[in-house]
Amino acid sequence: MNVIGKKVERIDGLEKAYGISKYVADYYFENMLYAGVVYANVPHGILKNIDISEAKKIPGVVYIATYKDVPGVNKFGHVIDDMNFLVPVGEKIRFEGDVLALIAAESKHAIEEARKLIKVEIEELPPVLSIDEAIKDKIIVNGKSNIGFHRKIRRGNVDDAFSKADLIIDEKFETGYQEHSYLETQGVVANYTPRGVMEIYVSAQCPFYVQKDVAKILGIELNRLNVIQTETGGGFGGKEDVPSYIASKAALLSYITKRPVKLIYTREMDIKETSKRHPSKSYYKVAFSKDGKILGIKTKVYLDMGAYSTLSPIVMYRTMVHASGAYSVKNVSVDVYGVYTNKVPCGAFRGFGSPQVLVAIESIMDRAAKKLNIDPYKIRMRNALDMNKETSTGHVLTQSVGAKKTLEKIYKASNYEILKKEVLEYNKNSKLKKLGLGWSHIFYGVSLGAGGQHLDGATATINVQSDGTINVMIGNTEMGQGAKTTMAIIVSEILGQDISKIRVLQPETLFIQDSGPTVASRTTFFSGNALKIATEKLKKNIVEFLVSYFGVGENEISFLDGKVFIREKVFSFEEIAKLCNDNNVKLSEVGWYKSPKLHFDHENGIGEAYITYSFATQLSLVEVDLLTGKVALKEAWVCHDIGKVINLEGAVGQVQGGVIQGMGYAIMEEIKQNSGKILTTNFNNYLIPTIKDIPEKIHVYFVEEEFSEGPFGAKGLGEPSLMTSPPSVLNAVSNAIGSFLNKIPISLEEIVKNTKEGKL
Amino acid sequence: MNVIGKKVERIDGLEKAYGISKYVADYYFENMLYAGVVYANVPHGILKNIDISEAKKIPGVVYIATYKDVPGVNKFGHVIDDMNFLVPVGEKIRFEGDVLALIAAESKHAIEEARKLIKVEIEELPPVLSIDEAIKDKIIVNGKSNIGFHRKIRRGNVDDAFSKADLIIDEKFETGYQEHSYLETQGVVANYTPRGVMEIYVSAQCPFYVQKDVAKILGIELNRLNVIQTETGGGFGGKEDVPSYIASKAALLSYITKRPVKLIYTREMDIKETSKRHPSKSYYKVAFSKDGKILGIKTKVYLDMGAYSTLSPIVMYRTMVHASGAYSVKNVSVDVYGVYTNKVPCGAFRGFGSPQVLVAIESIMDRAAKKLNIDPYKIRMRNALDMNKETSTGHVLTQSVGAKKTLEKIYKASNYEILKKEVLEYNKNSKLKKLGLGWSHIFYGVSLGAGGQHLDGATATINVQSDGTINVMIGNTEMGQGAKTTMAIIVSEILGQDISKIRVLQPETLFIQDSGPTVASRTTFFSGNALKIATEKLKKNIVEFLVSYFGVGENEISFLDGKVFIREKVFSFEEIAKLCNDNNVKLSEVGWYKSPKLHFDHENGIGEAYITYSFATQLSLVEVDLLTGKVALKEAWVCHDIGKVINLEGAVGQVQGGVIQGMGYAIMEEIKQNSGKILTTNFNNYLIPTIKDIPEKIHVYFVEEEFSEGPFGAKGLGEPSLMTSPPSVLNAVSNAIGSFLNKIPISLEEIVKNTKEGKL
Repeated sequence: MNVIGKKVERIDGLEKAYGISKYVADYYFENMLYAGVVYANVPHGILKNIDISEAKKIPGVVYIATYKDVPGVNKFGHVIDDMNFLVPVGEKIRFEGDVLALIAAESKHAIEEARKLIKVEIEELPPVLSIDEAIKDKIIVNGKSNIGFHRKIRRGNVDDAFSKADLIIDEKFETGYQEHSYLETQGVVANYTPRGVMEIYVSAQCPFYVQKDVAKILGIELNRLNVIQTETGGGFGGKEDVPSYIASKAALLSYITKRPVKLIYTREMDIKETSKRHPSKSYYKVAFSKDGKILGIKTKVYLDMGAYSTLSPIVMYRTMVHASGAYSVKNVSVDVYGVYTNKVPCGAFRGFGSPQVLVAIESIMDRAAKKLNIDPYKIRMRNALDMNKETSTGHVLTQSVGAKKTLEKIYKASNYEILKKEVLEYNKNSKLKKLGLGWSHIFYGVSLGAGGQHLDGATATINVQSDGTINVMIGNTEMGQGAKTTMAIIVSEILGQDISKIRVLQPETLFIQDSGPTVASRTTFFSGNALKIATEKLKKNIVEFLVSYFGVGENEISFLDGKVFIREKVFSFEEIAKLCNDNNVKLSEVGWYKSPKLHFDHENGIGEAYITYSFATQLSLVEVDLLTGKVALKEAWVCHDIGKVINLEGAVGQVQGGVIQGMGYAIMEEIKQNSGKILTTNFNNYLIPTIKDIPEKIHVYFVEEEFSEGPFGAKGLGEPSLMTSPPSVLNAVSNAIGSFLNKIPISLEEIVKNTKEGKL
Repeated sequence: MNVIGKKVERIDGLEKAYGISKYVADYYFENMLYAGVVYANVPHGILKNIDISEAKKIPGVVYIATYKDVPGVNKFGHVIDDMNFLVPVGEKIRFEGDVLALIAAESKHAIEEARKLIKVEIEELPPVLSIDEAIKDKIIVNGKSNIGFHRKIRRGNVDDAFSKADLIIDEKFETGYQEHSYLETQGVVANYTPRGVMEIYVSAQCPFYVQKDVAKILGIELNRLNVIQTETGGGFGGKEDVPSYIASKAALLSYITKRPVKLIYTREMDIKETSKRHPSKSYYKVAFSKDGKILGIKTKVYLDMGAYSTLSPIVMYRTMVHASGAYSVKNVSVDVYGVYTNKVPCGAFRGFGSPQVLVAIESIMDRAAKKLNIDPYKIRMRNALDMNKETSTGHVLTQSVGAKKTLEKIYKASNYEILKKEVLEYNKNSKLKKLGLGWSHIFYGVSLGAGGQHLDGATATINVQSDGTINVMIGNTEMGQGAKTTMAIIVSEILGQDISKIRVLQPETLFIQDSGPTVASRTTFFSGNALKIATEKLKKNIVEFLVSYFGVGENEISFLDGKVFIREKVFSFEEIAKLCNDNNVKLSEVGWYKSPKLHFDHENGIGEAYITYSFATQLSLVEVDLLTGKVALKEAWVCHDIGKVINLEGAVGQVQGGVIQGMGYAIMEEIKQNSGKILTTNFNNYLIPTIKDIPEKIHVYFVEEEFSEGPFGAKGLGEPSLMTSPPSVLNAVSNAIGSFLNKIPISLEEIVKNTKEGKL
């Protein structure tokens, strides 16, 4: 490998550092209007009336739209259409962020004035605000029952396993919300032109979702819509389905007014209306043999979907598959329930329903280790997946299983045995501050898996210009994760052209086939494969021409370092591009990759859940202040088996970011609510890790167990990079305070209460 | 054929009729500047100094650029770089439209104020204003000699042919300028973004030319430039190379100011600075046998290139090949010279150097017919090309030679023998008004031929959306000629989807491979072929999937009328698109077509000059007012062999437009100059045909001699549609007045002078 796995500077780094990248808020169009959103502001009720007559009179107000103005279908829903775009009079309001009206105006001031004059009558209903309340089904939030969805695994003989157990761990866990906290809030500019063509500039992960949803709301054809993903300042799942809801608002106003309409969310709007990580409640029973082998798992997991199902049924698929952790367990009973409440809808978030259960199972592993007097490292090694072993869904793994290698790597790299002793030593001498070590070992099903295979194809186009510069477009998106650099590396590896000559364009739905969503850590794998196919086809066109033009053999031609070597001659890539252009060689190709067919029994949750799995291990060293309960992650060792590292810098960055975001989830981040209203609507009270909170050292290692289907053997990293951190931190804190915790975010009070030596 | 050759409504017709198509003048960007051009205004001289110091002080003036500001190469030239972009101090001014400086300002008013304060010192030189003066080489306009280029054919034994001749016609011909008179003048908006990406919105035929030329002027890489062809209101060759010169002006100012810059030419600027059809002077000697067979041709043709060569060397190639007309001549000596003068540069114009010589050779055919007492129809039939005959360059035609069929069709359709008698009858009874009939028979080498083969490849992309709507992009452009409709017809024919669901996008150079210029009547052929390849690949993807999904044979699947028939089942195309999308079928393809290799000896002008030839015949009926000299084309019969008619309405429209534009060239349009300055700078004095001048009837017929390489057998039509008209009209006028004319435009005075009965 010449470029792959080497240190390559991020191709869009400088322009971001210099502040010249153009985000959606930077777009201005002639004659542009601003959009305002009118919320229900009550968690549960019936909309009795909405009167916009006075508000319309405000100077500068161009249009106020309600449900009556929707030309297409006034519904959203990823799996089922259970959400109104604009709540119709006579229908239900299900959370404070339900939208009643949209205002288009010449200025933001006019919007605020108009908002005051919109008269809304709502008959309030008692809200359902917790999972426990919801499952009673006394008050129905949505659909026929608050338990909207159920997914399950039934495998092996769980009762038998439990009857043979030497140890049974029976625990309840709770996890909280997490806000995506992308630096750039949601935003869109919609521009409906007189030609019946709608242009949508949007900060988004999934432009094809936006395209389909806006087309549905407006009732227009897909090829009349161009969704252009603008430079996107973070997504983390929060810009998977949500941009559809944002874009539709601006699109409707633009469609009606025939003017460009801009809608940039404030942080308050964003936190109030848009999706979060699902809070969960889970009940685990795990049976162990005395040597630490997991014999069986029985679990019920409840996810709080909030008012609408959005992506929850798909999130639940991942929860189900990951509920048994990264271990080979033969007897499994998993039930995952999606529960409606009168709160903000929850959806995609890095990890996608798996961090909630990994926190539980990894805490259980430590509990079992302690009871059985086995080291946490060893109990994980004992149960880890390996070649020819089966996952909890019965998927026999026949390649690319680096699970144990990630454990071994961390064991050695951290000098674990010595570290353990140092921690014991320190804790002996320290009264108020304690150190703790915590392991986590996880796996991650790459891409959409059997639950979303209909979306698992992706495309990439490449064209070489006559000066040797190259344009690439992929159907997945760059949202900060480094996809553009990864793609440029793949092209550079194949064609030898310098990275700086390769431009990766923002996707536009007019020009590129629907490549599914940019989620599920699938971009390197899917777009990478598609781009590899396209680039190799293009290289073949060039080579075939050179063979005939120079009369040489194929094996006498090679591409390296911006040069093309042809027998004893050397040309610059630019010279060859010009020669090809002058000889009408096809220098433009489109690649398409679709996943191999997976066999999965959805009734029993058994089969090939995903095309492959990434594996990872983290060891965290935390310091806990027993007096205040404050936790600091001092140092972390993380190792990922991602098949092949394409973009080394990007991969290291992903892991560093993931560890920190996961730490925030475990110890800091908390959405506080009162009577169904979110109180923590900005970063002054919703606390996320800052530069002062990050560990002194995050040691990042990779294991490369290549996956034959992946581009150059690569799997996926985006989400597992977060997933190791919450259980590892939770276990480290438990280790430090000498008491197991059952809830994240870990509160200061909880620590102080649980600390044995805390009773000073 | 289900759609091909049928009456199909123009897909971009309604939006043009409604006035909602967006032309470049309709583009506005935030913070946009206007550009002004400072001309030399003298035909010949040396720029001694340019002082912008006072002009810069005008409020609203943001920047004034001179040659010193050009970051790249300050030169243009299609074949040789003989033209300055901005004339440097110390260098030569070669025509009044040479550009000295560019002004960027907040308003057009500021530009005009600044222009007054720019102080220019020019040492004037005596200008060279005619071909005759130029070839003396006393004053050199450009390069080393005013005869800048020479092309020739030397074939057979011309002297021998002449020695055996029964009749030798020896004549001199002159043809004038023609202005393209596109409704939309040249225009551009350039937008250089902080990311180092230049966007160019431009009215143009050849976005890839603009891309390369702007990149050269600015010294930037090709993939940093996106040239977006905006809706283009006519080109006719006038937007082949010229938009490069226009776009570079706005691009330079935008590059410097980092703001969008708009430059829309006034008609006066456009007529003064931009290219025209070359005026010509030609000397013909043609040897005939007494039965009307052409034995040999000897000709020297001089084309007035104006101050710079631009496209002239390529124009001259076509002049050379077409100099002997559509006839099989074995003994040929052709010399074509390109001559520099201190006038506006001449370049591409529908017909591209062939109308000048077709006027001559077709006049000679009538002269010979008269002298040999053969009907003009018959003398053409006698010499016409046919299967296995050779063109004047020795190209043996082995297929698709409908030449004689076009003659026969007109002979019959016009009821020629009766018509002749009616005209004679009328003229006997009419003293002041005379009718005349004039034939022309022409051929046209399709696409760029051996002179431009390095540019003869083209691409097309297609993608099918999940709702069955389709996006197409081709590397050639729609400029009013109907290319979009033709492309939609090709897709509709193959996929059966309704035309209204197919959208043909404006090309953007970022997304599509350089497909050469949109000239030489090559769009249907090249882009059509590329699109056919892409669409058939895409259809194959769909069929392969359906075969495996439904378990049917390939031959049980058919696509028609927006439906897909699968054995006994019928689906809408939309349903099949959705099914394919859900099963991750590749629904995006890129096609590439390059012309077969041509063998041509450029030294002697012998070989396969073009991939194939279109053929056409016109018969014109004119009425000449002997008192005033006024000519009216009353009726025209035209028949074209274009291989296959894809877009029937478009083809008929092309021919109607071509006949009229050709008529304007023959009888009305005249650029008047004084001391190297154009006087006729708008349509008040440069007269073009209006609705009142067009014939009562233009009868259009097609012969379909399919060409195996063409898409569905098609060749090309854009230019031949004009080329029949000037010689046919000239011959008809000559016939009416009973005297042969040697010059177009035919002036009123000339008619009156030459009319025998005119001496009233």
